[in-house]
Amino acid sequence: MSNEIPKPSVPAPDIVRCAYMDLVVTDLAKSREFYVDVLGLHVTEEDENTIYLRSFEEFIHHNLVLRKGPVAAVASFAYRVKSPAEVDAAEAYYKELGCRTERRKDGFSKGIGDSVRVEDPLGFPYEFFYDVEHVERLTQRYDLYSAGELVRLDHFNQVTPDVPRGRKYLEDLGFRVSEDIKDSDGVTYAAWMHRKQTVHDTALTGGDGPRMHHVAFATHEKHNIIQICDKMGALRISDRIERGPGRHGVSNAFYLYILDPDGHRIEIYTQDYYTGDPDNPTVTWDVHDNQRRDWWGNPVVPSWYTEASLVLDLDGNPQEVIKRTDASEMAVTIGADGFSYTREPGEERGFKVGAQL
Amino acid sequence: MSNEIPKPSVPAPDIVRCAYMDLVVTDLAKSREFYVDVLGLHVTEEDENTIYLRSFEEFIHHNLVLRKGPVAAVASFAYRVKSPAEVDAAEAYYKELGCRTERRKDGFSKGIGDSVRVEDPLGFPYEFFYDVEHVERLTQRYDLYSAGELVRLDHFNQVTPDVPRGRKYLEDLGFRVSEDIKDSDGVTYAAWMHRKQTVHDTALTGGDGPRMHHVAFATHEKHNIIQICDKMGALRISDRIERGPGRHGVSNAFYLYILDPDGHRIEIYTQDYYTGDPDNPTVTWDVHDNQRRDWWGNPVVPSWYTEASLVLDLDGNPQEVIKRTDASEMAVTIGADGFSYTREPGEERGFKVGAQL
Amino acid sequence: MSNEIPKPSVPAPDIVRCAYMDLVVTDLAKSREFYVDVLGLHVTEEDENTIYLRSFEEFIHHNLVLRKGPVAAVASFAYRVKSPAEVDAAEAYYKELGCRTERRKDGFSKGIGDSVRVEDPLGFPYEFFYDVEHVERLTQRYDLYSAGELVRLDHFNQVTPDVPRGRKYLEDLGFRVSEDIKDSDGVTYAAWMHRKQTVHDTALTGGDGPRMHHVAFATHEKHNIIQICDKMGALRISDRIERGPGRHGVSNAFYLYILDPDGHRIEIYTQDYYTGDPDNPTVTWDVHDNQRRDWWGNPVVPSWYTEASLVLDLDGNPQEVIKRTDASEMAVTIGADGFSYTREPGEERGFKVGAQL
Amino acid sequence: MSNEIPKPSVPAPDIVRCAYMDLVVTDLAKSREFYVDVLGLHVTEEDENTIYLRSFEEFIHHNLVLRKGPVAAVASFAYRVKSPAEVDAAEAYYKELGCRTERRKDGFSKGIGDSVRVEDPLGFPYEFFYDVEHVERLTQRYDLYSAGELVRLDHFNQVTPDVPRGRKYLEDLGFRVSEDIKDSDGVTYAAWMHRKQTVHDTALTGGDGPRMHHVAFATHEKHNIIQICDKMGALRISDRIERGPGRHGVSNAFYLYILDPDGHRIEIYTQDYYTGDPDNPTVTWDVHDNQRRDWWGNPVVPSWYTEASLVLDLDGNPQEVIKRTDASEMAVTIGADGFSYTREPGEERGFKVGAQL
Repeated sequence: MSNEIPKPSVPAPDIVRCAYMDLVVTDLAKSREFYVDVLGLHVTEEDENTIYLRSFEEFIHHNLVLRKGPVAAVASFAYRVKSPAEVDAAEAYYKELGCRTERRKDGFSKGIGDSVRVEDPLGFPYEFFYDVEHVERLTQRYDLYSAGELVRLDHFNQVTPDVPRGRKYLEDLGFRVSEDIKDSDGVTYAAWMHRKQTVHDTALTGGDGPRMHHVAFATHEKHNIIQICDKMGALRISDRIERGPGRHGVSNAFYLYILDPDGHRIEIYTQDYYTGDPDNPTVTWDVHDNQRRDWWGNPVVPSWYTEASLVLDLDGNPQEVIKRTDASEMAVTIGADGFSYTREPGEERGFKVGAQL
Repeated sequence: MSNEIPKPSVPAPDIVRCAYMDLVVTDLAKSREFYVDVLGLHVTEEDENTIYLRSFEEFIHHNLVLRKGPVAAVASFAYRVKSPAEVDAAEAYYKELGCRTERRKDGFSKGIGDSVRVEDPLGFPYEFFYDVEHVERLTQRYDLYSAGELVRLDHFNQVTPDVPRGRKYLEDLGFRVSEDIKDSDGVTYAAWMHRKQTVHDTALTGGDGPRMHHVAFATHEKHNIIQICDKMGALRISDRIERGPGRHGVSNAFYLYILDPDGHRIEIYTQDYYTGDPDNPTVTWDVHDNQRRDWWGNPVVPSWYTEASLVLDLDGNPQEVIKRTDASEMAVTIGADGFSYTREPGEERGFKVGAQL
Repeated sequence: MSNEIPKPSVPAPDIVRCAYMDLVVTDLAKSREFYVDVLGLHVTEEDENTIYLRSFEEFIHHNLVLRKGPVAAVASFAYRVKSPAEVDAAEAYYKELGCRTERRKDGFSKGIGDSVRVEDPLGFPYEFFYDVEHVERLTQRYDLYSAGELVRLDHFNQVTPDVPRGRKYLEDLGFRVSEDIKDSDGVTYAAWMHRKQTVHDTALTGGDGPRMHHVAFATHEKHNIIQICDKMGALRISDRIERGPGRHGVSNAFYLYILDPDGHRIEIYTQDYYTGDPDNPTVTWDVHDNQRRDWWGNPVVPSWYTEASLVLDLDGNPQEVIKRTDASEMAVTIGADGFSYTREPGEERGFKVGAQL
Repeated sequence: MSNEIPKPSVPAPDIVRCAYMDLVVTDLAKSREFYVDVLGLHVTEEDENTIYLRSFEEFIHHNLVLRKGPVAAVASFAYRVKSPAEVDAAEAYYKELGCRTERRKDGFSKGIGDSVRVEDPLGFPYEFFYDVEHVERLTQRYDLYSAGELVRLDHFNQVTPDVPRGRKYLEDLGFRVSEDIKDSDGVTYAAWMHRKQTVHDTALTGGDGPRMHHVAFATHEKHNIIQICDKMGALRISDRIERGPGRHGVSNAFYLYILDPDGHRIEIYTQDYYTGDPDNPTVTWDVHDNQRRDWWGNPVVPSWYTEASLVLDLDGNPQEVIKRTDASEMAVTIGADGFSYTREPGEERGFKVGAQL
């Protein structure tokens, strides 16, 4: 397609993992209450405009930046690369793609050194860095361990109108697809893509974009996620529980989606599976399989399909949102027009729709 | 009210706990697959028409009878009483109430001796017995312990049109109310009532009745319930998961509702609280509090309000179902006409609606 | 035996459950750090000499009193009775036994009204009360729920030289035996006795007494107990973990024993079983069965057999400790002289030594 | 040192992860009962002399081979490499080291293709392969999920007399050290080394070697490990529980050690941490820190230090075991001569001995 994003001639940067999200919030005190008091993320550092947060088992400076600003949005999806030289590689790669880039030797946020930010071909603000300040890894600080403790940043999720186009771009960038959702007409609705050895570092969700669908943190066990729900009930903010808890079909993780005071969506996630082998089987789900999004068949709420956060360009202005023209997953699966099934017609026993080989 | 059920002059039987349900199913093989293969209940004894099942920590002969019959229904809600003499007391009590009773020295089901069955004033088939065959208590048979093990029968739940009338009758019978749901007009929508030291042995749900809303089994921990969902997903019967899992507001238990092949509703339930003190505080919930049925505010599906199982009279014929005339909980809380809230208007922080004292 | 404690002619008081322990500690600040900061018990009230603590799901004023004093000891084992009149019954009962009693209309501790304390025939300070101040039951205050939350007071454990003598006395008082440990010579090493519908409200452990072996709090799930260990490791007080965690043979509960700053032993305990039926099967364990104390066969540390807390008389002086003359469980099961087995000789497959019927 | 193993001039093979162990057992039926009936590993294939087993989330043919033989021993520690060419690389690498190698295009076990086995410089039979038959990944087959399900092969552990020598060799081979145990005299007692993004794929334990200390499988949650203990208690084989369960200091994982019918040691392991960043902090523990092996300070049983399995050469004969000459961890930490501490002398509050940076 003329629309396809070309693969640069220079090597892609060697990405280690998703590392942090730079999030613009409109009321810093309210956001602090949500992320620190309710969710228990740990403050590495803070000032009147910015809060740097990390998860329990993290040793780099932060996994989340809360930055006060006029419009709730994402300022960057930041990845860690394997060495200082890979920041150069990232800059060269995006320059060849014709993308706007900005290099800062002192980083875009505290605790992080030489970095490059880019406006990527899908319109997302991506960031790449290696240098970072090590901080206390709290792994065995069980005196600080809350009942709903968030132990790792797990992944990003991005909304984009054309999933195959985005997938091809991310595969060129070195991501590998672990799972996807398609239909028999060849439409792709979503794809999960990883660098570290989990199901994903980021995923593409088909929809009007570029927008940020969610950022996900991991817990150790399932009961930790239930506790977060219970606590939100106790605080009478159960209306901020958007979807779940449940078991994903895709990824097999136990999950929960909640909304921060600006409506940024946070996933709490645990127990997906190892994907580190080079021939890790890709699982493809039928969009009409009603266990793909929730293994128990519990319905996806419409807002989960339609709502997402704006993303910023390198000047700090929101990127224009482009409509998806392909069929939407919500339209083909929810309501009177939507077709979905639990098991094949005529089947006494069910079957696993995803094919692994 | 003229409608009120009088309190007999003879003492009420001293009830220990809900002990078993006698359930008529239309396809015994399918029901066996559900209760034994999927849920893992243990077969004490079985023949071509009947299966006697017990939970992991039970030492009496059974907690559930599956009995082949033409119409799916409940043949009895059976309670254990404190001594053989209490069966006499039960018979006398219901005779004075003018109820039809049937006494059988050899019991109505295998493994159980002298029993009385009654058609109670609400139209339910109640049974009382003391004599019972002890069987192996599997408590430490961890070699038989499945990932979703059901360890105890916890409670019954009955649908009746006039909850205050039923509540008064059950209080006279010796039950104590742990929690209820009301509105500011004085309408009662549901009440939870116990003999053993948990939140309930039975509950009354307002609706067209007499019908059986559900029978509940307990697990040790929350992950056991999640496993049952996961297994139903794997078997591609997620469409039999009706509601949940979730955390109840009422009772505080973690719960799941599933449907057997006849549509009989089973609850899986864990971790309510101790109610054994004589002044155990009764918790009253506002019907408009959207955390009363699910602490996380997840919606109740309409079928949960409308569907229930028939109950049989002592001849084995279904009891006629009487319409509820009071406001229905579904009508006042779901849809365009339903009013409910997460926190009081103007409240920055939430509050606990239920009052305990 | 001439030594036997006679059964009074007046009725025994109707005991509901173990309700609180009055504990003398030598350094109140250190004890507060242990019970509040480490274990997370909730302070109902405190002053410079006394701290009143309760567990998460409690609605009476307290489950534990920490009282500053010169000698670490137990000032009372307090039981709640079914009505105000039962306090009179208790007083009369112990008077007939010839025991010293003290009645206080305003109670022995804050939040509790009319009570009687006695020096019981075994030398223990027992207390009986009904009147009590209701406080906020925190059951759904998940905003206060710690990862190792203690949700209920579960039981006491008392050391006494002659277990059969003590058992007979407690049975007369209305307790029922759920489990015991014996040998083939008829020696009884321990007995578990309940009023509420769990395995015990108190237990008798054979040894030099009267002494307090431990007081136990319950958690919801097993991981809560593991978190307490993890936190004690993080605080570098793992030397205060005396025994466990493990699975008890007796009671089937998952357990942990830890030591407070004075050496008072605390058990953390979860998931024993329902005992409320009148014919609940009593389980008898062979003292030589090495799974009786730990189902996994992990050894009991000697201090667990030998160490225990002093108890006070009604003047606040420590009761004299009488030596056990029967064989000690430690002597017959630990070390070169101790005989124990995992399975019967010649058995390929193991068997459950405890007999339930 | 003259003793040092030289680094070859050719590149080390690119290892993905530990993949399977080839284990010789003396009674195949007894071993099958242990690994299949007790532990629930899944049989991919079996014949009268060999059983191929895999864990729940595995998609390659097997993680464990049970092979009938005259002497209980390990026939290979097998690693998966990144591509077919890396098998050539492995062969060249060990040839340059002067090691005996054997190449088999059809593999050494069913389901695996082109492989090379070597007698490595430490005397261990290492194997490298890429080609493998994909089988059904059971990840969402919750209908097969047991309460103590083993979901992944996690790591090997090898006993060798000279840990620094072995560590240098494995670092040359591309492993990275996540944690180690040392003393102030510079003696190294153990080291943990990884290729995949967990704490280890293999570890070196100081002792008489070459021997296999254990092979470890992961569970999802901690309760799964407790269930394995409970089940072994129910089967009256608690004497095969050697050590634990507990929380490791090193690795932070929740663990259990059990013994198979031949005395091969199996670890069950869950919830270590992510190590995928290039600068993942190495944690060094003091050998005298009594929380290094068990975070709760529970003692290590002597057999855990002294017992281990033989390993075979490429002819199938047991390798000669060489004595460790350095101080042994058992000698310096257990018994009258052993010195260990819970917290620094004079410290009121504890501290974390391991340094992460």
